[in-house]
Amino acid sequence: MTWGRFYGVGVGPGDPQLLTLKAVEVLRKTDVIAIPKSKLERESVAWEIAKGHCRPDVGQIEIELPMTSEREVLEQAWESGAERIRRLLADGQTVAFITLGDPSLYSTYTYLLDKLKGKIPEERIETVPGIMALAAAAARVNLPLAEGDEPLLILPSGEGIEDYLGFPNLVLMKVSRRLPEILARLKDKDRAAVLLSRVGHDTERIEWNPEAQRPDGKIDYLSLLIVKGAVGRAEEEN
Amino acid sequence: MTWGRFYGVGVGPGDPQLLTLKAVEVLRKTDVIAIPKSKLERESVAWEIAKGHCRPDVGQIEIELPMTSEREVLEQAWESGAERIRRLLADGQTVAFITLGDPSLYSTYTYLLDKLKGKIPEERIETVPGIMALAAAAARVNLPLAEGDEPLLILPSGEGIEDYLGFPNLVLMKVSRRLPEILARLKDKDRAAVLLSRVGHDTERIEWNPEAQRPDGKIDYLSLLIVKGAVGRAEEEN
Repeated sequence: MTWGRFYGVGVGPGDPQLLTLKAVEVLRKTDVIAIPKSKLERESVAWEIAKGHCRPDVGQIEIELPMTSEREVLEQAWESGAERIRRLLADGQTVAFITLGDPSLYSTYTYLLDKLKGKIPEERIETVPGIMALAAAAARVNLPLAEGDEPLLILPSGEGIEDYLGFPNLVLMKVSRRLPEILARLKDKDRAAVLLSRVGHDTERIEWNPEAQRPDGKIDYLSLLIVKGAVGRAEEEN
Repeated sequence: MTWGRFYGVGVGPGDPQLLTLKAVEVLRKTDVIAIPKSKLERESVAWEIAKGHCRPDVGQIEIELPMTSEREVLEQAWESGAERIRRLLADGQTVAFITLGDPSLYSTYTYLLDKLKGKIPEERIETVPGIMALAAAAARVNLPLAEGDEPLLILPSGEGIEDYLGFPNLVLMKVSRRLPEILARLKDKDRAAVLLSRVGHDTERIEWNPEAQRPDGKIDYLSLLIVKGAVGRAEEEN
């Protein structure tokens, strides 16, 4: 029996032109696409980006990802997703799990991989890196993330972020959960920030002076903040 | 007079397959490639990656980047490079400055951009993000950079890094400068690390237990360390 190959493919943050040649090659040859599915989106954003490059007859399986922080429920979902993938691989099929941005950074791919690692030969696993949302965001506004010997801190906006808000180069991910609070804290620390939502999508939005009170009351969940002392000043100079 | 377009193009860390479709499109249509050139490499690594995608008759200019920390010398080099590019753009030509990895992260591109910003219309500037070496490195060893609500710290290996070595998810860039010292400090803190050199190049090297004393006495300057408490343990389990 020959195991199929398993790929974790980063499809970038939104613009299909930000797929790599490698990702396109993998999508073209894969037998089955494994699509992460949460209640947040009716159709997976990753699939929207990838589907133009897949064979018309490509198999599809959806890996259900419950929106919960209950460890047991999550473990069970990943375990069950990994088992479905393992069976396809054991059958000799090539499977590509697609993920927004880069598969190694805040992706459910790493949990799936963890569950798969003992069950399939590791040499059959290949991770294909993708453009990170934060790289696309910085490029979109022509701003450096970090220069010279400066550190760069990437931080999801969970509990306990206060300690880090003084970091010179800071990217805050997943800000939709707590934007008003985060903006207030940044203001306390005299930090300027630019808010980018859905970079590279048709509905992209860039705000140089993000306000906690949204005109439409909504913050897209694909939003991040690039925080830099100089951002606000540079903007004022223009 | 119509200004030409200026692109800052990330060509990824080494594997030409890690170029994005967007980068390929820009390279194909550009009139002139601006190639960063330092004394470290006889021929630019970025050009090695990009050249297969450029027109055979593409113009080439080399932007000399002196290996110095003297601010005045550097400023002058960037200013002179920016001026050469400005003249081409004023002449209506499309110019693409290519850079290893991603243009927003530790790239000389951001200094050039800084010099160009006042001199050409900002809407003629486009930054094309690239795969970061750290994303390719994590993918190569199937390791997460960060999961869930964990922060990720990216740190060049300059002075004063000691304060940060306890960070749970840490990537140390430019480690060739001080590898023995860094490895000793990490050992003090009981941290495990994997060393990756020239990811995606023919001469790629991965070391799960990097030793300060190199058998060949050399450390490639395109090297980074992924530092994680669990790396060493996971490796021992296999």
